[in-house]
Amino acid sequence: MEAKNKTTFLNPFSLGIDLATGDMPEATNHLIRRASDMKGYYLNENALEELIKRDSDPIHYEVFEIPVPEEYGHLMYCISKLFPGKIGEEYFFTKGHYHTVEETAEIYLCLKGEGYMVMKTSDGKSEEIRMERGQMVYVPPFWAHRSVNTGTEPLISFCVYPAEAGHNYGDIKEQGFPKRIFEKGNAIRII
Amino acid sequence: MEAKNKTTFLNPFSLGIDLATGDMPEATNHLIRRASDMKGYYLNENALEELIKRDSDPIHYEVFEIPVPEEYGHLMYCISKLFPGKIGEEYFFTKGHYHTVEETAEIYLCLKGEGYMVMKTSDGKSEEIRMERGQMVYVPPFWAHRSVNTGTEPLISFCVYPAEAGHNYGDIKEQGFPKRIFEKGNAIRII
Repeated sequence: MEAKNKTTFLNPFSLGIDLATGDMPEATNHLIRRASDMKGYYLNENALEELIKRDSDPIHYEVFEIPVPEEYGHLMYCISKLFPGKIGEEYFFTKGHYHTVEETAEIYLCLKGEGYMVMKTSDGKSEEIRMERGQMVYVPPFWAHRSVNTGTEPLISFCVYPAEAGHNYGDIKEQGFPKRIFEKGNAIRII
Repeated sequence: MEAKNKTTFLNPFSLGIDLATGDMPEATNHLIRRASDMKGYYLNENALEELIKRDSDPIHYEVFEIPVPEEYGHLMYCISKLFPGKIGEEYFFTKGHYHTVEETAEIYLCLKGEGYMVMKTSDGKSEEIRMERGQMVYVPPFWAHRSVNTGTEPLISFCVYPAEAGHNYGDIKEQGFPKRIFEKGNAIRII
């Protein structure tokens, strides 16, 4: 039973997640994206450069996980934590990605914070869905997805996706998403 | 893009889950298992019959979901709610199942209550993992799994699994799991 149908046999395990803060203290993988990793993504390049200098290239978002084999049948899961802030008038966001296996979905269960999941398809569809504690967002197969933090706290979600999905940053750095989210006149504007 | 690679195209959606109580008010599917559905599963058949008569066949456990297509790439998710109680000395449990596509995993994120995930493989391995609020249990591919409520409140979990997984109750009604969980002398005994 070690590698039946190419799906690796594992023994069951568990780990603790603080459902108030999103802390996952047993996580063995910690992916960090700093402000400097976001060059080319925001409209206001100068504001990003200023942030990098002023705050010594701060963490922009981070992901915590205990990985499982990246194979059909397994499920990857993580805690995603996007810090609050703006680059000019534009709220902090994650790079966003398609799945390499594009016909795979992802589930986000928001534990803390406020924001949006911004999504698009390669043939031009666009959607955004509000995120707040207790809101579960279903990102269906074929949809690229980016989290945007429009609040004042970290935006923290528990995520699950098929372990073979992979990450494809595709056209996002060049084309972005059809919608960007700004603070204008103390209001959230989706443009 | 309507049915690329046989995976149905859906638009994104969201739904609310109360992270304190597990309530999912927008659920459109509600599966109910009553005490009478559990005939043949517990050691003390007479105690089960007495419960069915005394409490008018009460709900034993229930599942709430908004279904997605049962196809590769989609992810099914649900709230599972197992009531507290004992049949004789044996704590309430769910029937338990393998997945029909046996190489598919399942993730349980416990939101409320106390208990165990009891698991086995078809070649004789056995494991049990403690469940409590904030504990995430990874049920790997090939493992049959059953929830057991050893507490005094409902045992409530948010579950995610590949949408094509299916449920296979297999040998469980006849053979059960290698371990049963009892209350003996005010203590939890796993036997």
